[in-house]
Amino acid sequence: MTRVLRLGVGAAVDVFDGRGGLWHAVVDGVSRRAVTVRVGAPATPAPETRVRVRLVASVLKGDKMDEVVRDAVMLGVRAIVPVVSARSEATVAALVRGQRLARWQRVAVASAKQCGRAVVPDILEPQSADGYLAQPVDGLRLICVEPSLGAEPARSVHEISAPDAADLMIGPEGGWTPHELHAARQAGAVPVIIGRRTLRADAAPLVALAALLTTWGEL
Amino acid sequence: MTRVLRLGVGAAVDVFDGRGGLWHAVVDGVSRRAVTVRVGAPATPAPETRVRVRLVASVLKGDKMDEVVRDAVMLGVRAIVPVVSARSEATVAALVRGQRLARWQRVAVASAKQCGRAVVPDILEPQSADGYLAQPVDGLRLICVEPSLGAEPARSVHEISAPDAADLMIGPEGGWTPHELHAARQAGAVPVIIGRRTLRADAAPLVALAALLTTWGEL
Repeated sequence: MTRVLRLGVGAAVDVFDGRGGLWHAVVDGVSRRAVTVRVGAPATPAPETRVRVRLVASVLKGDKMDEVVRDAVMLGVRAIVPVVSARSEATVAALVRGQRLARWQRVAVASAKQCGRAVVPDILEPQSADGYLAQPVDGLRLICVEPSLGAEPARSVHEISAPDAADLMIGPEGGWTPHELHAARQAGAVPVIIGRRTLRADAAPLVALAALLTTWGEL
Repeated sequence: MTRVLRLGVGAAVDVFDGRGGLWHAVVDGVSRRAVTVRVGAPATPAPETRVRVRLVASVLKGDKMDEVVRDAVMLGVRAIVPVVSARSEATVAALVRGQRLARWQRVAVASAKQCGRAVVPDILEPQSADGYLAQPVDGLRLICVEPSLGAEPARSVHEISAPDAADLMIGPEGGWTPHELHAARQAGAVPVIIGRRTLRADAAPLVALAALLTTWGEL
Protein backbone atom coordinates (compact mmCIF):
# COMPACT_ATOMS: atom_id res chain seq x y z
CA MET A 1 0.00 0.00 0.00
CA THR A 2 2.66 2.51 0.90
CA ARG A 3 5.43 1.42 -1.49
CA VAL A 4 3.63 0.41 -4.67
CA LEU A 5 0.41 2.40 -4.39
CA ARG A 6 2.11 5.19 -2.36
CA LEU A 7 -0.91 5.58 -0.10
CA GLY A 8 -0.48 7.67 3.06
CA VAL A 9 -2.51 8.62 6.11
CA GLY A 10 -6.01 9.69 5.09
CA ALA A 11 -6.19 7.57 1.91
CA ALA A 12 -9.53 5.86 1.30
CA VAL A 13 -9.30 2.10 0.78
CA ASP A 14 -11.55 -0.94 0.94
CA VAL A 15 -10.55 -3.86 3.18
CA PHE A 16 -11.85 -7.43 3.05
CA ASP A 17 -11.53 -10.55 5.16
CA GLY A 18 -11.61 -13.08 2.29
CA ARG A 19 -14.75 -14.69 3.75
CA GLY A 20 -17.39 -12.30 2.42
CA GLY A 21 -16.80 -9.16 4.51
CA LEU A 22 -15.88 -5.91 2.71
CA TRP A 23 -15.63 -2.48 4.32
CA HIS A 24 -14.67 1.05 3.42
CA ALA A 25 -11.70 2.21 5.48
CA VAL A 26 -9.23 5.06 5.88
CA VAL A 27 -5.48 4.71 6.41
CA ASP A 28 -4.68 6.16 9.83
CA GLY A 29 -1.18 4.97 10.59
CA VAL A 30 1.90 4.09 8.54
CA SER A 31 5.18 2.72 9.86
CA ARG A 32 7.97 0.73 8.27
CA ARG A 33 6.40 -2.53 9.43
CA ALA A 34 2.67 -1.96 9.38
CA VAL A 35 -0.21 0.08 8.03
CA THR A 36 -3.27 0.55 10.22
CA VAL A 37 -6.69 1.54 8.94
CA ARG A 38 -9.87 2.79 10.56
CA VAL A 39 -12.69 0.52 9.34
CA GLY A 40 -15.91 2.29 8.37
CA ALA A 41 -19.19 1.28 6.77
CA PRO A 42 -19.71 -2.08 5.06
CA ALA A 43 -19.28 -2.03 1.26
CA THR A 44 -21.02 -4.19 -1.35
CA PRO A 45 -18.83 -6.88 -2.88
CA ALA A 46 -19.42 -8.57 -6.23
CA PRO A 47 -22.21 -11.12 -5.72
CA GLU A 48 -21.38 -14.79 -5.12
CA THR A 49 -23.00 -17.47 -7.25
CA ARG A 50 -25.83 -19.57 -5.81
CA VAL A 51 -24.39 -22.74 -7.37
CA ARG A 52 -21.26 -23.60 -5.39
CA VAL A 53 -18.74 -24.52 -8.09
CA ARG A 54 -15.39 -26.15 -7.41
CA LEU A 55 -12.91 -26.25 -10.29
CA VAL A 56 -11.01 -29.54 -10.34
CA ALA A 57 -8.12 -28.46 -12.55
CA SER A 58 -5.42 -30.75 -13.89
CA VAL A 59 -2.10 -29.04 -13.30
CA LEU A 60 -0.75 -27.56 -16.55
CA LYS A 61 2.80 -26.97 -17.77
CA GLY A 62 4.96 -24.15 -16.46
CA ASP A 63 3.13 -21.24 -14.84
CA LYS A 64 -0.15 -21.74 -16.69
CA MET A 65 -1.95 -22.75 -13.50
CA ASP A 66 -1.47 -19.18 -12.25
CA GLU A 67 -3.75 -17.97 -15.04
CA VAL A 68 -6.22 -20.78 -14.42
CA VAL A 69 -6.44 -19.81 -10.73
CA ARG A 70 -6.76 -16.09 -11.54
CA ASP A 71 -9.52 -16.69 -14.11
CA ALA A 72 -11.45 -19.19 -11.98
CA VAL A 73 -11.53 -16.77 -9.03
CA MET A 74 -12.77 -14.03 -11.39
CA LEU A 75 -15.60 -16.27 -12.58
CA GLY A 76 -16.72 -17.02 -9.05
CA VAL A 77 -15.60 -20.54 -8.08
CA ARG A 78 -15.78 -21.43 -4.38
CA ALA A 79 -12.72 -23.67 -4.39
CA ILE A 80 -9.99 -24.97 -6.66
CA VAL A 81 -8.83 -28.58 -6.44
CA PRO A 82 -5.48 -28.96 -8.26
CA VAL A 83 -5.06 -32.53 -9.49
CA VAL A 84 -2.19 -34.35 -11.13
CA SER A 85 -3.62 -36.54 -13.85
CA ALA A 86 -1.86 -39.15 -15.99
CA ARG A 87 -0.87 -36.68 -18.72
CA SER A 88 0.09 -33.80 -16.39
CA GLU A 89 3.81 -33.13 -16.63
CA ALA A 90 4.07 -32.29 -12.91
CA THR A 91 4.13 -34.63 -9.93
CA VAL A 92 2.50 -33.96 -6.57
CA ALA A 93 5.95 -34.12 -4.93
CA ALA A 94 7.38 -31.48 -7.30
CA LEU A 95 4.41 -29.16 -6.72
CA VAL A 96 4.84 -29.46 -2.95
CA ARG A 97 8.60 -28.90 -3.22
CA GLY A 98 7.98 -25.83 -5.41
CA GLN A 99 5.54 -24.39 -2.85
CA ARG A 100 3.05 -23.94 -5.63
CA LEU A 101 0.04 -23.99 -3.30
CA ALA A 102 1.26 -20.85 -1.50
CA ARG A 103 1.84 -19.18 -4.87
CA TRP A 104 -1.66 -20.07 -6.12
CA GLN A 105 -3.12 -18.72 -2.88
CA ARG A 106 -1.37 -15.38 -3.47
CA VAL A 107 -2.73 -15.33 -7.04
CA ALA A 108 -6.24 -16.05 -5.70
CA VAL A 109 -6.07 -13.15 -3.22
CA ALA A 110 -4.86 -10.77 -5.94
CA SER A 111 -7.61 -11.90 -8.32
CA ALA A 112 -10.36 -11.54 -5.69
CA LYS A 113 -9.20 -7.95 -5.09
CA GLN A 114 -9.17 -7.16 -8.78
CA CYS A 115 -12.60 -8.57 -9.61
CA GLY A 116 -14.34 -7.15 -6.55
CA ARG A 117 -15.07 -10.42 -4.73
CA ALA A 118 -14.88 -10.41 -0.94
CA VAL A 119 -14.45 -14.20 -0.87
CA VAL A 120 -11.08 -15.79 -1.56
CA PRO A 121 -11.71 -19.34 -2.78
CA ASP A 122 -9.99 -22.19 -0.97
CA ILE A 123 -7.23 -23.89 -2.89
CA LEU A 124 -6.71 -27.49 -1.83
CA GLU A 125 -3.40 -29.31 -1.62
CA PRO A 126 -2.42 -30.84 -4.98
CA GLN A 127 -3.43 -34.49 -5.18
CA SER A 128 -3.67 -37.26 -7.77
CA ALA A 129 -6.75 -37.41 -9.98
CA ASP A 130 -7.35 -40.96 -8.74
CA GLY A 131 -7.15 -39.76 -5.14
CA TYR A 132 -9.64 -36.99 -5.86
CA LEU A 133 -12.06 -39.42 -7.53
CA ALA A 134 -11.93 -41.73 -4.52
CA GLN A 135 -13.49 -39.01 -2.34
CA PRO A 136 -17.25 -38.45 -2.24
CA VAL A 137 -18.45 -35.04 -3.45
CA ASP A 138 -21.21 -32.75 -2.35
CA GLY A 139 -23.29 -32.22 -5.52
CA LEU A 140 -22.89 -32.89 -9.22
CA ARG A 141 -19.60 -34.09 -10.65
CA LEU A 142 -18.91 -33.00 -14.23
CA ILE A 143 -15.95 -33.99 -16.39
CA CYS A 144 -15.14 -31.96 -19.52
CA VAL A 145 -14.37 -34.13 -22.54
CA GLU A 146 -13.24 -33.15 -26.02
CA PRO A 147 -15.71 -32.90 -28.89
CA SER A 148 -13.49 -35.23 -30.95
CA LEU A 149 -14.23 -38.09 -28.54
CA GLY A 150 -17.37 -38.74 -30.56
CA ALA A 151 -17.84 -42.24 -29.21
CA GLU A 152 -18.44 -41.06 -25.65
CA PRO A 153 -22.07 -40.50 -24.71
CA ALA A 154 -21.49 -36.96 -23.40
CA ARG A 155 -23.97 -34.18 -22.65
CA SER A 156 -23.80 -30.72 -24.12
CA VAL A 157 -23.61 -27.81 -21.69
CA HIS A 158 -27.25 -26.86 -22.36
CA GLU A 159 -28.44 -30.19 -20.97
CA ILE A 160 -26.96 -29.66 -17.50
CA SER A 161 -29.53 -28.19 -15.09
CA ALA A 162 -28.31 -25.97 -12.27
CA PRO A 163 -27.34 -28.08 -9.25
CA ASP A 164 -26.78 -26.77 -5.70
CA ALA A 165 -23.10 -27.59 -6.03
CA ALA A 166 -20.86 -28.87 -8.80
CA ASP A 167 -17.32 -30.12 -9.22
CA LEU A 168 -16.04 -29.34 -12.73
CA MET A 169 -13.12 -31.55 -13.80
CA ILE A 170 -10.82 -30.25 -16.58
CA GLY A 171 -8.01 -32.31 -18.10
CA PRO A 172 -4.37 -31.39 -18.83
CA GLU A 173 -2.75 -30.53 -22.19
CA GLY A 174 -3.04 -34.08 -23.54
CA GLY A 175 -6.56 -34.67 -22.19
CA TRP A 176 -7.82 -37.42 -19.93
CA THR A 177 -6.72 -41.02 -20.44
CA PRO A 178 -9.36 -43.70 -21.15
CA HIS A 179 -8.60 -45.06 -17.66
CA GLU A 180 -9.34 -41.68 -16.07
CA LEU A 181 -12.56 -41.26 -18.05
CA HIS A 182 -13.65 -44.72 -16.95
CA ALA A 183 -12.76 -44.03 -13.30
CA ALA A 184 -14.61 -40.71 -13.43
CA ARG A 185 -17.72 -42.45 -14.80
CA GLN A 186 -17.49 -45.03 -12.04
CA ALA A 187 -17.31 -42.16 -9.55
CA GLY A 188 -20.55 -40.74 -10.93
CA ALA A 189 -19.07 -37.98 -13.11
CA VAL A 190 -21.20 -36.79 -16.03
CA PRO A 191 -19.14 -36.22 -19.23
CA VAL A 192 -19.87 -32.82 -20.78
CA ILE A 193 -18.69 -31.30 -24.07
CA ILE A 194 -17.92 -27.59 -23.94
CA GLY A 195 -18.32 -26.36 -27.47
CA ARG A 196 -17.68 -27.94 -30.82
CA ARG A 197 -14.16 -26.63 -31.33
CA THR A 198 -11.15 -28.07 -29.51
CA LEU A 199 -10.16 -25.73 -26.66
CA ARG A 200 -6.60 -25.07 -25.55
CA ALA A 201 -6.01 -26.59 -22.10
CA ASP A 202 -5.28 -23.23 -20.46
CA ALA A 203 -8.42 -21.60 -21.89
CA ALA A 204 -10.72 -24.56 -21.21
CA PRO A 205 -11.47 -23.73 -17.54
CA LEU A 206 -12.49 -20.17 -18.39
CA VAL A 207 -14.70 -21.22 -21.33
CA ALA A 208 -16.25 -24.13 -19.43
CA LEU A 209 -17.02 -21.98 -16.37
CA ALA A 210 -18.43 -19.16 -18.52
CA ALA A 211 -20.62 -21.59 -20.49
CA LEU A 212 -21.98 -23.39 -17.41
CA LEU A 213 -22.58 -20.20 -15.41
CA THR A 214 -24.35 -18.65 -18.41
CA THR A 215 -26.52 -21.76 -18.75
CA TRP A 216 -27.38 -21.56 -15.05
CA GLY A 217 -28.05 -17.77 -15.12
CA GLU A 218 -25.15 -17.26 -12.73
CA LEU A 219 -22.47 -15.43 -14.72
CA MET B 1 6.66 -30.10 -41.08
CA THR B 2 10.04 -31.61 -41.70
CA ARG B 3 12.11 -29.71 -39.11
CA VAL B 4 9.79 -29.34 -36.11
CA LEU B 5 7.42 -32.26 -36.62
CA ARG B 6 10.08 -34.35 -38.46
CA LEU B 7 7.55 -35.67 -40.94
CA GLY B 8 8.88 -37.47 -44.01
CA VAL B 9 7.52 -39.02 -47.21
CA GLY B 10 4.47 -41.16 -46.47
CA ALA B 11 3.35 -39.21 -43.36
CA ALA B 12 -0.40 -38.64 -43.06
CA VAL B 13 -1.42 -34.99 -42.59
CA ASP B 14 -4.49 -32.81 -43.00
CA VAL B 15 -4.30 -29.72 -45.21
CA PHE B 16 -6.69 -26.73 -45.27
CA ASP B 17 -7.21 -23.66 -47.41
CA GLY B 18 -8.34 -21.30 -44.61
CA ARG B 19 -11.70 -20.79 -46.33
CA GLY B 20 -13.52 -23.90 -45.17
CA GLY B 21 -11.81 -26.68 -47.14
CA LEU B 22 -10.02 -29.46 -45.23
CA TRP B 23 -8.56 -32.63 -46.73
CA HIS B 24 -6.61 -35.68 -45.69
CA ALA B 25 -3.25 -35.81 -47.46
CA VAL B 26 0.02 -37.74 -47.60
CA VAL B 27 3.50 -36.24 -47.84
CA ASP B 28 5.01 -37.35 -51.14
CA GLY B 29 8.01 -35.09 -51.62
CA VAL B 30 10.47 -33.30 -49.35
CA SER B 31 13.24 -30.95 -50.43
CA ARG B 32 15.12 -28.17 -48.63
CA ARG B 33 12.70 -25.58 -49.96
CA ALA B 34 9.34 -27.32 -50.22
CA VAL B 35 7.16 -30.16 -49.09
CA THR B 36 4.59 -31.56 -51.52
CA VAL B 37 1.57 -33.59 -50.50
CA ARG B 38 -0.91 -35.78 -52.35
CA VAL B 39 -4.39 -34.52 -51.44
CA GLY B 40 -6.96 -37.23 -50.70
CA ALA B 41 -10.51 -37.32 -49.40
CA PRO B 42 -12.22 -34.31 -47.80
CA ALA B 43 -12.11 -34.24 -43.97
CA THR B 44 -14.66 -32.78 -41.55
CA PRO B 45 -13.58 -29.51 -39.92
CA ALA B 46 -14.95 -28.12 -36.64
CA PRO B 47 -18.36 -26.60 -37.43
CA GLU B 48 -18.69 -22.86 -38.03
CA THR B 49 -21.27 -20.87 -36.06
CA ARG B 50 -24.50 -19.77 -37.75
CA VAL B 51 -24.28 -16.32 -36.13
CA ARG B 52 -21.44 -14.48 -37.86
CA VAL B 53 -19.58 -12.84 -34.99
CA ARG B 54 -16.87 -10.20 -35.42
CA LEU B 55 -14.79 -9.36 -32.35
CA VAL B 56 -14.06 -5.63 -32.19
CA ALA B 57 -11.16 -5.77 -29.75
CA SER B 58 -9.46 -2.74 -28.23
CA VAL B 59 -5.73 -3.28 -28.54
CA LEU B 60 -4.24 -4.31 -25.16
CA LYS B 61 -0.80 -3.74 -23.66
CA GLY B 62 2.24 -5.71 -24.75
CA ASP B 63 1.56 -9.01 -26.48
CA LYS B 64 -1.83 -9.62 -24.91
CA MET B 65 -3.61 -9.20 -28.25
CA ASP B 66 -1.89 -12.40 -29.40
CA GLU B 67 -3.88 -14.31 -26.79
CA VAL B 68 -7.07 -12.45 -27.64
CA VAL B 69 -6.67 -13.40 -31.32
CA ARG B 70 -5.84 -17.02 -30.47
CA ASP B 71 -8.84 -17.36 -28.15
CA ALA B 72 -11.30 -15.59 -30.46
CA VAL B 73 -10.36 -17.87 -33.36
CA MET B 74 -10.84 -20.88 -31.09
CA LEU B 75 -14.32 -19.69 -30.15
CA GLY B 76 -15.34 -19.30 -33.77
CA VAL B 77 -15.33 -15.59 -34.70
CA ARG B 78 -15.48 -14.77 -38.41
CA ALA B 79 -13.32 -11.67 -38.17
CA ILE B 80 -11.35 -9.59 -35.72
CA VAL B 81 -11.39 -5.80 -35.89
CA PRO B 82 -8.48 -4.38 -33.83
CA VAL B 83 -9.34 -0.88 -32.62
CA VAL B 84 -7.34 1.73 -30.78
CA SER B 85 -9.60 3.32 -28.20
CA ALA B 86 -8.93 6.34 -25.97
CA ARG B 87 -7.45 4.27 -23.15
CA SER B 88 -5.44 1.88 -25.35
CA GLU B 89 -1.72 2.44 -24.80
CA ALA B 90 -0.92 1.77 -28.46
CA THR B 91 -1.37 4.03 -31.48
CA VAL B 92 -2.43 2.92 -34.94
CA ALA B 93 0.90 4.19 -36.30
CA ALA B 94 2.91 2.13 -33.78
CA LEU B 95 0.89 -1.00 -34.56
CA VAL B 96 1.50 -0.55 -38.31
CA ARG B 97 5.22 0.11 -37.72
CA GLY B 98 5.44 -3.01 -35.54
CA GLN B 99 3.79 -5.12 -38.26
CA ARG B 100 1.36 -6.40 -35.70
CA LEU B 101 -1.29 -7.29 -38.26
CA ALA B 102 1.02 -9.83 -39.91
CA ARG B 103 1.82 -11.26 -36.48
CA TRP B 104 -1.88 -11.56 -35.54
CA GLN B 105 -2.56 -13.27 -38.87
CA ARG B 106 0.11 -15.88 -38.08
CA VAL B 107 -1.44 -16.39 -34.63
CA ALA B 108 -4.87 -16.82 -36.26
CA VAL B 109 -3.60 -19.49 -38.68
CA ALA B 110 -1.91 -21.38 -35.81
CA SER B 111 -5.05 -21.22 -33.68
CA ALA B 112 -7.31 -22.41 -36.53
CA LYS B 113 -5.02 -25.43 -36.97
CA GLN B 114 -5.05 -26.22 -33.26
CA CYS B 115 -8.79 -25.98 -32.75
CA GLY B 116 -9.73 -27.87 -35.91
CA ARG B 117 -11.33 -24.97 -37.85
CA ALA B 118 -10.83 -24.90 -41.60
CA VAL B 119 -11.64 -21.17 -41.70
CA VAL B 120 -9.03 -18.57 -40.78
CA PRO B 121 -10.86 -15.44 -39.65
CA ASP B 122 -10.01 -12.15 -41.35
CA ILE B 123 -8.10 -9.69 -39.24
CA LEU B 124 -8.68 -6.11 -40.31
CA GLU B 125 -6.11 -3.30 -40.29
CA PRO B 126 -5.94 -1.59 -36.88
CA GLN B 127 -8.09 1.55 -36.80
CA SER B 128 -9.40 4.06 -34.28
CA ALA B 129 -12.54 3.19 -32.32
CA ASP B 130 -14.15 6.37 -33.66
CA GLY B 131 -13.28 5.36 -37.21
CA TYR B 132 -14.80 1.93 -36.66
CA LEU B 133 -17.99 3.43 -35.22
CA ALA B 134 -18.37 5.69 -38.24
CA GLN B 135 -18.81 2.64 -40.50
CA PRO B 136 -22.15 0.91 -40.89
CA VAL B 137 -22.30 -2.71 -39.74
CA ASP B 138 -24.09 -5.76 -41.01
CA GLY B 139 -26.12 -6.97 -38.02
CA LEU B 140 -26.26 -6.25 -34.30
CA ARG B 141 -23.65 -4.07 -32.63
CA LEU B 142 -22.93 -4.94 -28.98
CA ILE B 143 -20.63 -3.08 -26.61
CA CYS B 144 -19.46 -4.76 -23.40
CA VAL B 145 -19.68 -2.51 -20.36
CA GLU B 146 -18.56 -3.11 -16.79
CA PRO B 147 -21.04 -4.20 -14.12
CA SER B 148 -19.85 -1.31 -11.92
CA LEU B 149 -21.28 1.21 -14.42
CA GLY B 150 -24.61 0.79 -12.65
CA ALA B 151 -26.07 3.96 -14.09
CA GLU B 152 -25.98 2.70 -17.66
CA PRO B 153 -29.15 1.01 -18.88
CA ALA B 154 -27.36 -2.12 -20.10
CA ARG B 155 -28.76 -5.53 -21.00
CA SER B 156 -27.59 -8.76 -19.50
CA VAL B 157 -26.31 -11.42 -21.85
CA HIS B 158 -29.49 -13.50 -21.48
CA GLU B 159 -31.56 -10.72 -22.99
CA ILE B 160 -29.72 -10.72 -26.32
CA SER B 161 -31.48 -12.90 -28.89
CA ALA B 162 -29.40 -14.58 -31.60
CA PRO B 163 -28.93 -12.23 -34.57
CA ASP B 164 -27.68 -13.25 -38.03
CA ALA B 165 -24.51 -11.28 -37.43
CA ALA B 166 -23.03 -9.41 -34.51
CA ASP B 167 -20.11 -7.09 -33.82
CA LEU B 168 -18.94 -7.45 -30.21
CA MET B 169 -16.97 -4.44 -28.94
CA ILE B 170 -14.60 -4.97 -25.97
CA GLY B 171 -12.73 -2.14 -24.23
CA PRO B 172 -9.07 -1.85 -23.23
CA GLU B 173 -7.53 -2.18 -19.74
CA GLY B 174 -9.06 1.05 -18.47
CA GLY B 175 -12.45 0.49 -20.09
CA TRP B 176 -14.36 2.74 -22.49
CA THR B 177 -14.50 6.50 -21.94
CA PRO B 178 -17.90 8.18 -21.49
CA HIS B 179 -17.35 9.75 -24.92
CA GLU B 180 -16.82 6.34 -26.52
CA LEU B 181 -19.89 4.88 -24.79
CA HIS B 182 -21.95 7.82 -26.03
CA ALA B 183 -20.59 7.50 -29.57
CA ALA B 184 -21.29 3.76 -29.56
CA ARG B 185 -24.88 4.37 -28.47
CA GLN B 186 -25.27 6.94 -31.23
CA ALA B 187 -24.00 4.31 -33.66
CA GLY B 188 -26.71 1.91 -32.52
CA ALA B 189 -24.59 -0.25 -30.20
CA VAL B 190 -26.45 -2.11 -27.44
CA PRO B 191 -24.57 -2.03 -24.09
CA VAL B 192 -24.30 -5.48 -22.55
CA ILE B 193 -22.97 -6.59 -19.16
CA ILE B 194 -21.04 -9.85 -19.18
CA GLY B 195 -21.32 -11.20 -15.66
CA ARG B 196 -21.46 -9.53 -12.29
CA ARG B 197 -17.77 -9.65 -11.48
CA THR B 198 -15.24 -7.30 -13.07
CA LEU B 199 -13.34 -9.16 -15.80
CA ARG B 200 -9.67 -8.63 -16.62
CA ALA B 201 -9.34 -6.97 -20.02
CA ASP B 202 -7.44 -9.87 -21.56
CA ALA B 203 -10.00 -12.46 -20.37
CA ALA B 204 -13.06 -10.38 -21.27
CA PRO B 205 -13.22 -11.35 -24.97
CA LEU B 206 -13.10 -15.08 -24.16
CA VAL B 207 -15.74 -14.81 -21.43
CA ALA B 208 -18.00 -12.55 -23.49
CA LEU B 209 -17.80 -14.78 -26.56
CA ALA B 210 -18.39 -17.94 -24.49
CA ALA B 211 -21.39 -16.36 -22.75
CA LEU B 212 -23.02 -15.04 -25.95
CA LEU B 213 -22.39 -18.23 -27.94
CA THR B 214 -23.80 -20.31 -25.06
CA THR B 215 -26.88 -18.07 -24.94
CA TRP B 216 -27.32 -18.50 -28.70
CA GLY B 217 -26.76 -22.28 -28.63
CA GLU B 218 -23.66 -21.80 -30.77
CA LEU B 219 -20.69 -22.68 -28.56
